[in-house]
Amino acid sequence: MTSRTTFVSRGTRTTIAGEGSLLELAQQAGLMLPSLCGGRGKCAKCRVHPRGPTSDPTSLEAELLSPEELSRGIRLGCQAHPAGEVEVEVEEEVLDKGDYVEIAVTPDPCVRTLPLVLPVPAMHDDLADIERIRVGLGRPVTVGLETLRRLPGVLREAEFRVTAALFDHGGSEELLALTPGDRSGAAYGLAFDIGTTTVVGHLLDLATGRELARSARQNGQQPWGADVLSRASHAMEQRDGLAALQAAVAGTLNQIIEDCCRGVDRGQVYAVTVVGNAVMHHLALGISPASIAVSPYVSATRDGLCLPAGALGLALPNARVIFLPLIGAYVGSDTLGVILATGLDESADTQLAVDIGTNGEMALGSRDRLLACSAPAGPAFEGGEIRHGMRAARGAIDRVRIRDDVRIWTIGEAAPRGICGSGLIDALAEMVRVGIVEPGGRLLPRPTLEGRLPPPLLQRVVGEGHAWEFVLCREPSITITQHDVRQLQLAKGTILCGIRLLLDELGVEVGRIRRVLLAGAFGNFIDTKSAQGIGLLPPEISRDRIQGVGNAAGQGSRMALLSRQVQARAESVARRVEYFELSKHPRFEETFVESLRLDAERV
Amino acid sequence: MTSRTTFVSRGTRTTIAGEGSLLELAQQAGLMLPSLCGGRGKCAKCRVHPRGPTSDPTSLEAELLSPEELSRGIRLGCQAHPAGEVEVEVEEEVLDKGDYVEIAVTPDPCVRTLPLVLPVPAMHDDLADIERIRVGLGRPVTVGLETLRRLPGVLREAEFRVTAALFDHGGSEELLALTPGDRSGAAYGLAFDIGTTTVVGHLLDLATGRELARSARQNGQQPWGADVLSRASHAMEQRDGLAALQAAVAGTLNQIIEDCCRGVDRGQVYAVTVVGNAVMHHLALGISPASIAVSPYVSATRDGLCLPAGALGLALPNARVIFLPLIGAYVGSDTLGVILATGLDESADTQLAVDIGTNGEMALGSRDRLLACSAPAGPAFEGGEIRHGMRAARGAIDRVRIRDDVRIWTIGEAAPRGICGSGLIDALAEMVRVGIVEPGGRLLPRPTLEGRLPPPLLQRVVGEGHAWEFVLCREPSITITQHDVRQLQLAKGTILCGIRLLLDELGVEVGRIRRVLLAGAFGNFIDTKSAQGIGLLPPEISRDRIQGVGNAAGQGSRMALLSRQVQARAESVARRVEYFELSKHPRFEETFVESLRLDAERV
Repeated sequence: MTSRTTFVSRGTRTTIAGEGSLLELAQQAGLMLPSLCGGRGKCAKCRVHPRGPTSDPTSLEAELLSPEELSRGIRLGCQAHPAGEVEVEVEEEVLDKGDYVEIAVTPDPCVRTLPLVLPVPAMHDDLADIERIRVGLGRPVTVGLETLRRLPGVLREAEFRVTAALFDHGGSEELLALTPGDRSGAAYGLAFDIGTTTVVGHLLDLATGRELARSARQNGQQPWGADVLSRASHAMEQRDGLAALQAAVAGTLNQIIEDCCRGVDRGQVYAVTVVGNAVMHHLALGISPASIAVSPYVSATRDGLCLPAGALGLALPNARVIFLPLIGAYVGSDTLGVILATGLDESADTQLAVDIGTNGEMALGSRDRLLACSAPAGPAFEGGEIRHGMRAARGAIDRVRIRDDVRIWTIGEAAPRGICGSGLIDALAEMVRVGIVEPGGRLLPRPTLEGRLPPPLLQRVVGEGHAWEFVLCREPSITITQHDVRQLQLAKGTILCGIRLLLDELGVEVGRIRRVLLAGAFGNFIDTKSAQGIGLLPPEISRDRIQGVGNAAGQGSRMALLSRQVQARAESVARRVEYFELSKHPRFEETFVESLRLDAERV
Repeated sequence: MTSRTTFVSRGTRTTIAGEGSLLELAQQAGLMLPSLCGGRGKCAKCRVHPRGPTSDPTSLEAELLSPEELSRGIRLGCQAHPAGEVEVEVEEEVLDKGDYVEIAVTPDPCVRTLPLVLPVPAMHDDLADIERIRVGLGRPVTVGLETLRRLPGVLREAEFRVTAALFDHGGSEELLALTPGDRSGAAYGLAFDIGTTTVVGHLLDLATGRELARSARQNGQQPWGADVLSRASHAMEQRDGLAALQAAVAGTLNQIIEDCCRGVDRGQVYAVTVVGNAVMHHLALGISPASIAVSPYVSATRDGLCLPAGALGLALPNARVIFLPLIGAYVGSDTLGVILATGLDESADTQLAVDIGTNGEMALGSRDRLLACSAPAGPAFEGGEIRHGMRAARGAIDRVRIRDDVRIWTIGEAAPRGICGSGLIDALAEMVRVGIVEPGGRLLPRPTLEGRLPPPLLQRVVGEGHAWEFVLCREPSITITQHDVRQLQLAKGTILCGIRLLLDELGVEVGRIRRVLLAGAFGNFIDTKSAQGIGLLPPEISRDRIQGVGNAAGQGSRMALLSRQVQARAESVARRVEYFELSKHPRFEETFVESLRLDAERV
């Protein structure tokens, strides 16, 4: 019997059939258990609590887990294997790029495979090998040196019965690979979304568009800093820093290739697409991102690129890697993927797409005109620089309501450990609504609030002098401080400022926006009422027009992998999007200040 | 004062100004002194006798040369340096690809260099680096990953004052390299002729067409056999044999690059052209030549190729290497070079070009139609499988006349050591003319010749039974044996058979041939009367129509390097030449037998 493992994460169930450690299976499910040692049974970070039959605990587990943990059934994900029907609720930090909205793309990939039965060379049929193939194909094809080197051997070993994989360069075709026998039924591709934190890859059948495997892994560049600027500065300042960062992300991509290609011949993976922000794009290519990191913020290139996988150190012998073009130095091909996936560029109506992260990338427009900008929101919405902030993971407060007292909800309904972005927006919106925080951002001292709040709430306002905070949870203590409020206010002000300047530039009233599309995991979990409540999103937009679209960037990467038409769209969109750097906009400062207010009516 | 060294080889004087060992300077002059140790003062093979001021003998020379040699002024070429005006007559084996006919080509190279003074990126001028270059150039250019990786650094170090080298791919242009400052005046190229025995390279100034340096070196594949078949079989049969042969020829090319690029920045060598036979072409590219070596003699490709120098292991960071196309499995791009250099493809009249070596490659035709074939003559004309045969070098008998007695001439007027190709043809023609050898190829026994030859000649016919031979020189003994005659007869028969079948195929009478062009060193030294005398060349052709054209293959390589128009001609010629394998021709056997006779009147 094949084992089946179901992972439950934030209420989403993903079932994976097959063998492997729970750590590996979780990766295939697009989930990432925390691991510092890469699954070698050293760090003991990948603790899980599987329900159902599993392999016996290993000696490593006996060493690294306490007797109490062992008796409760706690296991290390890298050691335990399913032995039947198993369910695992993932604990601790689980990074998930969100759900995928399936969009129907008619497969029209840039690679096609054709079986050839060629005549064997003879006395009066002495065409050169490549000419024989061209005659067999009935068309002229170019061929690179590596493939040419393999031709004579493959043809003769296979007695001239081979499969040709042809790559369409738009007008001309290249013979990418020749494999023995008829393998024309099998052509695979990998779509990557290289995030600063997490890299996700999808293995697709190019003919049917079916997803065969998926894997997410932490970006191997993490040791060089959490954000793009620290990565860029390492590449700049350290000797061989650029090479190290390139090798690190190539290593992550190769791990994902290994995860996804179990049971699939890597030689039959012919195409790869990549989206990512400009710094990730440059680092993956081994190009210095130094000039992106400093004013005036210039990239080396924004071009779409097509390269042999070997040139990037990827363990795919026959694949071409397509980097979708960048829109600008701070609006990358990930945002282009969002535009492709949401169809912003083909829409008759004006739509707004927002991807909120450390940078908020946003695009506004329709098939007539597209604008994009980047808003440097900072890490507050990811829990960064917030006293009790944390990423969206088990135990994070993700929903807050204030009536007579405070009510909180946590991810996995676990004991609270901190507060994540959606919880922070809820908390702030509620604190403004009940008057604990003024529209200008001041967290009022308890004496000022006397008589204006019910006693249970009043007791939650603690502190003295200028250092007041609001207690969401007493055990453990989780509070919102004045500093937290200011950080969130700056972050939301930057996003709103970006939206407003986009509207200004396009010359469109906010009411004309047909849909607001929130990309990324955050967009799926945010409470839109709260987001409008604090003026993160313009309150004039009817709430039913706001929707989460999951990992639209990765979705765009998958669409481009499957369709030449989408690739062509990508090139055309990248060239026609009007991009601006928010901080360089002449009305940035005044608009930013106006965007800081926390009361919906006034923003 | 700069030293000037004049090398005298077979009456040709080549003067090289500059420093270096005499071995290195000889290489720059296109001459190759024998050397087994690569100039490390170990093999003592590179003995020379310089006249004029030179450096003092080194301790290595004191060790390796006898006191008598030292007192006569004999030196090791690798140790002695000129110290003024020096003349060196080259001794021992000197391989020379023959003289070069200078043909005027208007430089129109595939690379051009343009100086750019670009605006520095600023707040409102934040184009990506490659876009800034495109705007500066006023045209779209593509760029490869390696160059893209270098862009940001070069632009900023050079404060955006740079030189762009653009490579014309026929329609689209690629940014090959970006160098700091204005270096638009300097763009170089290297033209190679990769022979099985010798590799010759020429460094040219792409703008003026001027030759700046030349170097010839023994092909580093020599240890794996003297001819293409032994090289091919090594590549086939030995594990890593192909890689070893590729590395060996790349090593030779790199030595020539080093020879030629003294004082020239290798980063400014942007283009390389290569001609050679099909096996050399495949081995240099790292493609197995196995199928060329066995019937039905098929190459992997005949295409013209354009590759980054790094892909072939060449130490030229910015160069593209253009392999001219092959005509067929046994008529390579060297023959294509001959056609380009001699203008066969543009001629209104019918011309015949013949390159006699181990294989005799020949092309016949005009601008209307071109035919080519390969005649496997074997090594007899290079002195191979001939008892006293040797290559054309000092001491080789290169001219023979028979009147009342035998008169011989040697290269360098030195004491005779053996006999080279032109001497063999002379000897055979004279032996047939005076009746020592019958038109059918039988070397008559002395008894049969009694009374038909003057006594001094008669005494030179020695031997017994079926093993008679003719003595050309008594001290040392240098003779022509019956076996030698048969070898020469088979070789000349093969060449003549090729010429006849070409004429048949073209449907042209031999008298219609306007010119017979003999390519290669052999063609320069052959006595055309003797060649016609033995029926190596058809005797109907008036002798003033036969001319040597030197290393026309290398000349074709140089022309292609300098001119896109010639490159385009090369592609078009390669596609329209009608190629056939001589041994596969239906009338090969009968024509070959007819071609064996040694009397001019009857062939």
